[in-house]
Amino acid sequence: MSIAGIQDRFIAIRNNKAFETFVIVVIVVSALVIGAKTYQIDPVLGRVFELLDTSITLFFLLEIVIRMLSERNLVTFFKKGWNVFDFVIVTASLIPVEESEMALLGRLLRIFRVLRLVSIIPELRILLNAFLNAIPRMGYVSLMMFIIFYIYGAMGSVFFGAINPQLWGNISISLLTLFRVATFEDWTDVMYETMEVYPLSWIFYLSFIFIVAFIFLNMMIGIVLETLQREHEQFNREQGEGEAGEVHWIREHTQAMEQRMERIERLLEKR
Amino acid sequence: MSIAGIQDRFIAIRNNKAFETFVIVVIVVSALVIGAKTYQIDPVLGRVFELLDTSITLFFLLEIVIRMLSERNLVTFFKKGWNVFDFVIVTASLIPVEESEMALLGRLLRIFRVLRLVSIIPELRILLNAFLNAIPRMGYVSLMMFIIFYIYGAMGSVFFGAINPQLWGNISISLLTLFRVATFEDWTDVMYETMEVYPLSWIFYLSFIFIVAFIFLNMMIGIVLETLQREHEQFNREQGEGEAGEVHWIREHTQAMEQRMERIERLLEKR
Amino acid sequence: MSIAGIQDRFIAIRNNKAFETFVIVVIVVSALVIGAKTYQIDPVLGRVFELLDTSITLFFLLEIVIRMLSERNLVTFFKKGWNVFDFVIVTASLIPVEESEMALLGRLLRIFRVLRLVSIIPELRILLNAFLNAIPRMGYVSLMMFIIFYIYGAMGSVFFGAINPQLWGNISISLLTLFRVATFEDWTDVMYETMEVYPLSWIFYLSFIFIVAFIFLNMMIGIVLETLQREHEQFNREQGEGEAGEVHWIREHTQAMEQRMERIERLLEKR
Amino acid sequence: MSIAGIQDRFIAIRNNKAFETFVIVVIVVSALVIGAKTYQIDPVLGRVFELLDTSITLFFLLEIVIRMLSERNLVTFFKKGWNVFDFVIVTASLIPVEESEMALLGRLLRIFRVLRLVSIIPELRILLNAFLNAIPRMGYVSLMMFIIFYIYGAMGSVFFGAINPQLWGNISISLLTLFRVATFEDWTDVMYETMEVYPLSWIFYLSFIFIVAFIFLNMMIGIVLETLQREHEQFNREQGEGEAGEVHWIREHTQAMEQRMERIERLLEKR
Repeated sequence: MSIAGIQDRFIAIRNNKAFETFVIVVIVVSALVIGAKTYQIDPVLGRVFELLDTSITLFFLLEIVIRMLSERNLVTFFKKGWNVFDFVIVTASLIPVEESEMALLGRLLRIFRVLRLVSIIPELRILLNAFLNAIPRMGYVSLMMFIIFYIYGAMGSVFFGAINPQLWGNISISLLTLFRVATFEDWTDVMYETMEVYPLSWIFYLSFIFIVAFIFLNMMIGIVLETLQREHEQFNREQGEGEAGEVHWIREHTQAMEQRMERIERLLEKR
Repeated sequence: MSIAGIQDRFIAIRNNKAFETFVIVVIVVSALVIGAKTYQIDPVLGRVFELLDTSITLFFLLEIVIRMLSERNLVTFFKKGWNVFDFVIVTASLIPVEESEMALLGRLLRIFRVLRLVSIIPELRILLNAFLNAIPRMGYVSLMMFIIFYIYGAMGSVFFGAINPQLWGNISISLLTLFRVATFEDWTDVMYETMEVYPLSWIFYLSFIFIVAFIFLNMMIGIVLETLQREHEQFNREQGEGEAGEVHWIREHTQAMEQRMERIERLLEKR
Repeated sequence: MSIAGIQDRFIAIRNNKAFETFVIVVIVVSALVIGAKTYQIDPVLGRVFELLDTSITLFFLLEIVIRMLSERNLVTFFKKGWNVFDFVIVTASLIPVEESEMALLGRLLRIFRVLRLVSIIPELRILLNAFLNAIPRMGYVSLMMFIIFYIYGAMGSVFFGAINPQLWGNISISLLTLFRVATFEDWTDVMYETMEVYPLSWIFYLSFIFIVAFIFLNMMIGIVLETLQREHEQFNREQGEGEAGEVHWIREHTQAMEQRMERIERLLEKR
Repeated sequence: MSIAGIQDRFIAIRNNKAFETFVIVVIVVSALVIGAKTYQIDPVLGRVFELLDTSITLFFLLEIVIRMLSERNLVTFFKKGWNVFDFVIVTASLIPVEESEMALLGRLLRIFRVLRLVSIIPELRILLNAFLNAIPRMGYVSLMMFIIFYIYGAMGSVFFGAINPQLWGNISISLLTLFRVATFEDWTDVMYETMEVYPLSWIFYLSFIFIVAFIFLNMMIGIVLETLQREHEQFNREQGEGEAGEVHWIREHTQAMEQRMERIERLLEKR
């Protein structure tokens, strides 16, 4: 059998709907095994899980080899970000990890295999891409927010550092405390403590909460709305439904009318 | 009197506005009885409530029989989901429940009778349907969110399981703890505890909060906005009001203008 | 001097811009006095506040009499809801209250005088009206929410009443506890307590939080968006700005074009 | 070398892209030094930071002098709000502060230097301006909110002042407590305490939460949406993309069509 023949067979396997479904099933099983292992389990069952785990690892290896060989060359395979992601997850979990520290890493990598669900289901892939695309658009808002956190964090360290070093000891601890205040988690305890030394420190907390809530809401709602509105309009225009669809219809017919009018004017001028 | 005559009478009762109002009143009374029974009450009053309860159960039975007999055949009756819901609620509360365990179930079923308000008031029925319709549309977002919870849950169990088994003992407990973190409920207590062993575990919590808050807000606001905007536009178009109304007006008149122009062009070409 | 002459003078006073500003100043002073009285104050200053308070009460009486006499008859005065509000607030604070219980009521009425700011500043009056108008539109959503609270409240009382009567003793206490859970305030403490008896009771809390958060967000965002969008479009259309403004412009010009085309067609047919 | 020549050189430096980038780097370094100083550091490193700090202060002085001299006269320099801001920050940090109290102020001013990032990066400047512009538009909503806080605060002081002076002692403490309730931070602890004396005081808290959450959400979402929608439409219109872009296209072509029709009508009438 020729090499091209083998490759065609691999492509056939890769594009097979049943194979894809089977891969999804294996990922789900792999996720369930990960979950089951967090319980206190019978040693016999533990042995079964061990075997299952090895089989899953080998199957994933097989699957990625098939997908790699289906491509004309490896460069085109690695050009897709999702393929790189799959490759790293699969090969990394092959490395034998025995020591306690590395064993944890090995288990972590097995957990991240669940993310392969995202890479294999197209709808989830689109969704994740949409999210990732939305983030940089709000990059300056995030930068602004970080500047505000940084300024308040520095102020917190300088003024409240001596009062409670566990909350305001240095700027990284302060930033964590501020994030806590931003989530309203026992923030009054933090405030009452500093108000005993600086009675006016409520201004610090209230101004921070107002500014952050304001910017955070802006950032969040902004990203969501922009993404949604764009998709909504796009969908409507394509379907010719809703207001955007009607506007699109009008646009096209206005164009047709203009051309017709030009013909009319020419007809009249000719005579 | 013929059977058809009896059925016509049943239909007349079912469609009677006063009968419908009376059913609503009975449901509300039934809800009030349920509420009243949760208080420490006088045994005499308790007896009255017992009687009221039985009467309500019998009335609901009567009402559902009338509605069933009003249909040409039972199949058409059971085709409507709401009828099935009513039937289950009413018949299930007929089963005599005496033992302590079953008595609780009986009381539960009586509580769910309040939901019959939703099935009988058309506006609430429409509202609930709108909600139910909105959920599957966001199905992939929910799946994405579950995957994220699952991955963080598994990571939590693996790394923090030994620190506090009550919060991270196995994956189901971890998922509950993560939901708690997502609602910002004493999440810093959870974090400070694990930070003593893994000082960098704040990355785990902060990344989780950012991702979940982001997706959750997307999901919620997305559903709400899509539903609202659709209804808003639909309403405006029908009423010819607002921007969508004007666009619709323009669309129709553009069509009329095009036809008129065609006539003009033909008039000019004929000569 | 004739009665009509006096009335004209009253109308002149009422419509005087300076008089209106003075009334606003008096309300603000009245608010400040209320605030100042909550502090431990010097008896001498207390005496001054007492006098100020009496003067303010008398001034408000004078002002409302002027506004009442400015109307042709009292019926037209009382037809406006805001006038009734002002009248009740002013007259009620005239009743001499000496006993401890009534004194509190008297102080309460004085506090509500601050609301007169809303009744006198037109922009705030419009704002409040907009809010009040928005609420009933979402009436069925509120009803739905109450039904859900009621069902969960009844379930909570029945199942958890014996576990902690302080939180689930009867349906009203249960409703308050559920509201607390809905605000995420120490809700895990409530949950962990019942989970010791019913390990599956987390389903109760999680389903409640999902349903309520979903409906609540719907209700809130729905009201806000509907109101805002309407105002936004209205404003844009009037100003001829933005998309809505352009659509309005197109609509009017399409109408003009249609009429012109009709004339053209008639001109062509005549010949 | 002539004075005009020197000024031209200054303008050249100011407009130099590399110089601008260098200023940004210095600001970032200055921010990092501020952050580093909050840690317990080696005295030698502390000395280095001291030197760095002085160099940064001098560099900022040099930079602002260059920018001042680049302007034709100082009045045009100080007309821009951001220039005034930079000038105050830079000159204030020049004042030698040795005493403990003033030293804190000096450190505070150094922290605020981070804000210079906002003044130097145009995108952040635009962002901040957008935020600042949005706030006054919602001025009446803020006033309404303050009135509600004030009324509830006064009521809280009057009724609950004797129960817990630490939470309701006077109107300013009450306002802080109410803000805490508005963020849902341990609000049930506050409520349960007062419910022991006034069992109906839950009405106070629930009504407050509903009103404030409602208005607050209105205010926040309102500002965000208005700003976003305006920008979105503006962008679309300019790019000729999306619905707003299409509407704009239609508007312009409708205008062209009208003119053409006028010509047609005139042609027909002439004959």
